[in-house]
Amino acid sequence: MNKPALHTSLSPALLHLYDLDDSVVVIIDVFRATSTIASALYNGATCVIPVDSVPLAIEISSKIDGIAAGERDGKLAEGLQYGNSPLEYTREFIAGKTLVLTTTNGTRLLHMALARGADTVVSGSFPNLSAVCDFLISEKKNVVLACAGWKDRFNLEDTLFAGAVISRVKDHFTIHCDSSLMAEAMYENNKEDLMSFVPGLTHYHRLVERFGLIDDIRFCITPDTANVLPVYKDEKLVVK
Amino acid sequence: MNKPALHTSLSPALLHLYDLDDSVVVIIDVFRATSTIASALYNGATCVIPVDSVPLAIEISSKIDGIAAGERDGKLAEGLQYGNSPLEYTREFIAGKTLVLTTTNGTRLLHMALARGADTVVSGSFPNLSAVCDFLISEKKNVVLACAGWKDRFNLEDTLFAGAVISRVKDHFTIHCDSSLMAEAMYENNKEDLMSFVPGLTHYHRLVERFGLIDDIRFCITPDTANVLPVYKDEKLVVK
Repeated sequence: MNKPALHTSLSPALLHLYDLDDSVVVIIDVFRATSTIASALYNGATCVIPVDSVPLAIEISSKIDGIAAGERDGKLAEGLQYGNSPLEYTREFIAGKTLVLTTTNGTRLLHMALARGADTVVSGSFPNLSAVCDFLISEKKNVVLACAGWKDRFNLEDTLFAGAVISRVKDHFTIHCDSSLMAEAMYENNKEDLMSFVPGLTHYHRLVERFGLIDDIRFCITPDTANVLPVYKDEKLVVK
Repeated sequence: MNKPALHTSLSPALLHLYDLDDSVVVIIDVFRATSTIASALYNGATCVIPVDSVPLAIEISSKIDGIAAGERDGKLAEGLQYGNSPLEYTREFIAGKTLVLTTTNGTRLLHMALARGADTVVSGSFPNLSAVCDFLISEKKNVVLACAGWKDRFNLEDTLFAGAVISRVKDHFTIHCDSSLMAEAMYENNKEDLMSFVPGLTHYHRLVERFGLIDDIRFCITPDTANVLPVYKDEKLVVK
């Protein structure tokens, strides 16, 4: 039997190049949307509703008594009380509640994947690396690893996560995709000390030099600290 | 004084993210358009006219008694007598003649860069690596390294060339660009034996397994064997 195919899309602006029908699409926004989604669900959030805009986040959360949260350009968005830090969503705070989340890149990409007919959409980051890999192997479907990047630009942290997934699941897939070869090579060359690699990233300057979020970054690149699988169903991300 | 900025665009579908005004844009299509352009000019072609379509290549070349050449999907395009192999353009054949070239990715990207207002457009590949680097350093302008990829998909060979350029010129530029960091890292990790890296590339399967072009590939990834700088001027690429 032929193995299913795996591709990596390095930017939302490249997603149209890949066939999402009958595919599992993994939304990857390591700093920080998909790390925050894993954290909130791991800590007992009922679900996460990803939305495109701040007004919509406020409108939906007020109707359902949820937590409206998110960021624009890495900062707390105006009109929201909670941000996009995975460390904000402790069990004490979020258990039993619904998080309505809007972010610059990750939630937008998730809606793009849905609009393009993705069969199954899950979200992934280092905190839920194993859950994502186990699911991809068990599904036996084609996979597109979809990196959110930053305003359509390529970024390394999302690529490194794609590489981490590929390095664990590659025996189960056919991979003829230079993006995937590159992602795996970058991960293999840096996996022993991802944290030392991080200060070179453009996103590091944005998050740490401007906002001081070093603890966020450490959480976002540490494997399996919030190891649940968020799956999109009925307009919500829920734990599978 | 601030150093000029250097960015790497990993696909024509990402070129719109970069400001090309007052910038030098390096068109990169290692397999094989920009290797062929370097080869033809190095061997004495009067100029190379890059055109978008096969009919236009035939029309222009018949008017000026030029050589109409090119490929579609890696093969000699119908109606053309000459292809996109750098090894076809020996001094005996091409000296004193004009090459009218159309290719799947490289010539299209060149026209995109012009349409987006690039100040200066040059073409680069391993055969003219040093000439490209010397020019970028001497110009002291912002630089965009524009990878042609394959039908808008990322490819590794163009990225490796971008990395080779960055590794030589980086002290002269400000680089806050994850694409450039990745390209340099991929090059540094593979520069000792690029040929051994090549069989993993998706393009390798296209060129070698289907068309047997291993000598072409070796030429395209060998530095400085056709070390001229092709600059676009008055609708032609000429040696600067």
